[in-house]
Amino acid sequence: MDVAGRAARLRDCLEVDALLVTKLVNIRYLTGFTGSAGLLLVLPDELLFVTDGRYRDQAAEQLSDAGVDATISIGLTMEAQAEILRTAASGVDRLGLEAHSVSWAQQRAMAATWFPTVGELVPTEDVVESLRIVKDEGEVARIEAAATIATTALVNVRDLLEQHPTEHEFGLAIDTEIRRLGAEGNSFDTIVGSGPNGAKPHHRASSSHRRIGEGELVVIDYGALVDGYCSDMTRTICTGTPNELQQRMIDVVMTAQQAGVDRVHAGVTGVEVDKACREVIGEAGWAESFSHGTGHGVGLEIHEDPRVTFASTATLAAGHVVTVEPGVYLPEQGGVRIEDTLVVTADGSRPLTHASKNWDLRSWPSPPTI
Amino acid sequence: MDVAGRAARLRDCLEVDALLVTKLVNIRYLTGFTGSAGLLLVLPDELLFVTDGRYRDQAAEQLSDAGVDATISIGLTMEAQAEILRTAASGVDRLGLEAHSVSWAQQRAMAATWFPTVGELVPTEDVVESLRIVKDEGEVARIEAAATIATTALVNVRDLLEQHPTEHEFGLAIDTEIRRLGAEGNSFDTIVGSGPNGAKPHHRASSSHRRIGEGELVVIDYGALVDGYCSDMTRTICTGTPNELQQRMIDVVMTAQQAGVDRVHAGVTGVEVDKACREVIGEAGWAESFSHGTGHGVGLEIHEDPRVTFASTATLAAGHVVTVEPGVYLPEQGGVRIEDTLVVTADGSRPLTHASKNWDLRSWPSPPTI
Repeated sequence: MDVAGRAARLRDCLEVDALLVTKLVNIRYLTGFTGSAGLLLVLPDELLFVTDGRYRDQAAEQLSDAGVDATISIGLTMEAQAEILRTAASGVDRLGLEAHSVSWAQQRAMAATWFPTVGELVPTEDVVESLRIVKDEGEVARIEAAATIATTALVNVRDLLEQHPTEHEFGLAIDTEIRRLGAEGNSFDTIVGSGPNGAKPHHRASSSHRRIGEGELVVIDYGALVDGYCSDMTRTICTGTPNELQQRMIDVVMTAQQAGVDRVHAGVTGVEVDKACREVIGEAGWAESFSHGTGHGVGLEIHEDPRVTFASTATLAAGHVVTVEPGVYLPEQGGVRIEDTLVVTADGSRPLTHASKNWDLRSWPSPPTI
Repeated sequence: MDVAGRAARLRDCLEVDALLVTKLVNIRYLTGFTGSAGLLLVLPDELLFVTDGRYRDQAAEQLSDAGVDATISIGLTMEAQAEILRTAASGVDRLGLEAHSVSWAQQRAMAATWFPTVGELVPTEDVVESLRIVKDEGEVARIEAAATIATTALVNVRDLLEQHPTEHEFGLAIDTEIRRLGAEGNSFDTIVGSGPNGAKPHHRASSSHRRIGEGELVVIDYGALVDGYCSDMTRTICTGTPNELQQRMIDVVMTAQQAGVDRVHAGVTGVEVDKACREVIGEAGWAESFSHGTGHGVGLEIHEDPRVTFASTATLAAGHVVTVEPGVYLPEQGGVRIEDTLVVTADGSRPLTHASKNWDLRSWPSPPTI
């Protein structure tokens, strides 16, 4: 992972004299630091990383491992950290603050006491994010590794379904297996929506004790976390041979999802990919039942740019990693959603989620032991 | 839980004409709403709750269940929600915004387009938090229920220690059992620090594959989440009869922790409780080895007011819920920390964590089946 070169690329697109990076995931991206507290000041010719005493050793190790050439300063209190930054930024005219990350209270404190000698505090938006949107090989490999763990976990726990677990129990089995297989955890709260619960797109497994019955559709939307990177995949299985309506829902969503995936390539807009899915579902008469966007970017955050929706302003580019996840939800009856995560290439895409899409989870091939 | 009366108490201490509550945990406290998106406008004679389409049914159900008399408005987009709030706040002179929750970008958008007709946007701090600091019976019961699940989970998985698991494996077993017993999850990332890792106060289990050896001290700091409320407890066990140094560390921390607990009552300052622990550890010659504060408030958040540290400005009051958690950490060798969570009473305190403090986990009584 070429972490070390990122700060230089950031400087190339800065429209301020210096940037104070406060969003932790952006600090991780630029330095490799994974702790829960830190501030990164990007100056024209220096990187200054400030954290507290807990992270003295960790910061030194992680920045060194990433090959990041930064000055590390420890301030035991927030006041001490402010003092370090005040001195370092004293000659700066326009200092950028990440406006979506800095709270109003922090901005007020910075204006009044942290940076009284700085010419101007400038609100910035999506500066580091504009770099993060294009993934390098190391990042793609981590997302794919997380996806492989997630797929393996689902196969490894499939026998549990024969015992008719609750959604909570099945979700817990998946989550536990994901961690047993070496992931840091889930990339978001696992969704297990069986029968009528499948009609709620964001139904959480953890709070539902509904028992998964025979012959039901079960929407399973989940992901793993590897080295900070998220995977994201949805499969809809059926606990028995699908009836006519269920089979039709599966067929329509499968076709819609493939249409969306086929549309993905560098240069296409998010709107066009969304439209490709929406047309198939609309032709089936279920336009109203596809009540969410088609997809989103995935990386260090589970939802990031680019958005793939009817209102998206994004154009996909090589190295973007996006989901394609159309669905059909029929209130009281159930839902089907199928989602893959793809890396965009010049002439198409490559899937990072490799699981079968067969409704019969028992038919899926056993993965190699991780 | 008397959720319904909280907004009235909030109004009594408002120094603005209306307050826009944006921090989700504060919205939950005032309304019972548990979703991931919502805005609550507290007007002099009305509560207005605004959320998006996903939460239409959930908001109606949860506010009704809590007995909260609020107008619920749905805005499908952020612009639509802004429009609803703009209209409702149009006659307001001084509108408070939670300055630690609202981002600078949000504040700028609110000033420019959400609330152009409001007289003044006023930054507020710790307004809802000042109510949350005193827990009612229902809140205390939830914290205690979470603590009971956490204790039971540790006892239920203790046999695993005989197989010499890694810290990751033992932490995962605890976390899984906590969820199997009905908690919503962990209240924070479980800490399992064995041998030398015990000397790092915030050592996470999830990223450590160190195998727990014989005759080692193991610091276990963890908690469960019940109905949104956190529990927090640390125990230090030994996987074999402690040697002389280990036994001395255990004895000193046990004595220090008891001294801190004995000092807790309504009217004492956080500084005094911290000092009671620190004196015992200092007399043992380990003053430098107790490198963190003595405790913190616990509730809907794992760390909240009041703080119990040498720099604390808090005076404890009946109904506060705080931890007392001194520790001794000897680099390369190991650590001991013992932590209980207590509810403060007029003349003392009542523990909400009921686990044994014996270093031999095998000696702990088997809890009743949950």
